Amino acid sequence: MPQGKPAYVPDDGLTTRQRRNRPLLVVHTGAGKGKSTAAFGLATRGWAQGWDIGVFQFVKSAKWRIGEEKALRVLGESGEGGRVTWNKMGEGWSWIQRPGTEADHAADAAEGWEQIKRDLAAETYRLYVLDEFTYPIKWGWIDVADVVQTLRDRPGAQHVIITGRDAHPDLLDAADLVTEMTKIRHPMDTGQKGQRGIEW
Amino acid sequence: MPQGKPAYVPDDGLTTRQRRNRPLLVVHTGAGKGKSTAAFGLATRGWAQGWDIGVFQFVKSAKWRIGEEKALRVLGESGEGGRVTWNKMGEGWSWIQRPGTEADHAADAAEGWEQIKRDLAAETYRLYVLDEFTYPIKWGWIDVADVVQTLRDRPGAQHVIITGRDAHPDLLDAADLVTEMTKIRHPMDTGQKGQRGIEW
Repeated sequence: MPQGKPAYVPDDGLTTRQRRNRPLLVVHTGAGKGKSTAAFGLATRGWAQGWDIGVFQFVKSAKWRIGEEKALRVLGESGEGGRVTWNKMGEGWSWIQRPGTEADHAADAAEGWEQIKRDLAAETYRLYVLDEFTYPIKWGWIDVADVVQTLRDRPGAQHVIITGRDAHPDLLDAADLVTEMTKIRHPMDTGQKGQRGIEW
Repeated sequence: MPQGKPAYVPDDGLTTRQRRNRPLLVVHTGAGKGKSTAAFGLATRGWAQGWDIGVFQFVKSAKWRIGEEKALRVLGESGEGGRVTWNKMGEGWSWIQRPGTEADHAADAAEGWEQIKRDLAAETYRLYVLDEFTYPIKWGWIDVADVVQTLRDRPGAQHVIITGRDAHPDLLDAADLVTEMTKIRHPMDTGQKGQRGIEW
């Protein structure tokens, strides 16, 4: 954990408070576990500050996020923090089981991104989780240059967290904070399958 | 994310279901961000399954976990999942600002560990988050051999997640799942200090 002491103080004309509160683009990538769980953990912190949270779930089948979705729904409805909106891009389609054609998935993903652009322009949320968003970029369904420019030019103080393996290099370049989750050991290696409460 | 296909099926006499539901020891280590946020994300998944969650907060000052503590309190009180108990080992003492002497901290940490041992023996919780637990081990305040043996011999189906940098090699050897969070880029590098809703 950072000790609160920056490596240097930049000559950017900002006060410490202004610099401290700059909106962040955060990327969680790598082959290890924890990319999405850490993103939802950040969303929880933001919720606790009273921030409105927008989750945009790309790619994964509905099963994989039932725990997070339930928790964020309960939190959002509690009235003790911000509101939470959970958006499923393409209603639970998955790279594991693929109903529909690839063209359908590409169109769903592209429409999901257009919704995010509208919300960013309208400053609908204070914190966005774009879960598994690296994949539609990787597959060429969403243009990375459009993503980078849109995020760079977004108004206000909107934090954006993007998760997924194989993040595009241009996305990494644009990010303020990048963590790579590296797999050291996984129960799958010793023949254990995923289990409820841990994997979803 | 694992695709649900184990690398091989071990000859351990367990059914797939038994193997699938084996309790896990999970370690999140490394210098990058996301170790604790991912642990609290896992706790949220477990809560959604109706599991009772025990959080044991070591080392960090109280400020750093206010978001997670609030969220887990609201979830635990909602009646829609498991119950949540948040235990502060040494009531908010910190490696940043150290009130008290090192001997006090060591004694607090050791007593915290004894409480965990009692709870494991009683199967008080289904999932334990031992947040920043690597540090009292590193500092010699808690004996790693005792930790490894206690966790190896714990009864029932209790999952344990341990977070913190510099995890002891014996702890890594004992773990079922290890993820290293690697820092690729952090706003601190460009002079930005931690901010509310992101760092705590």
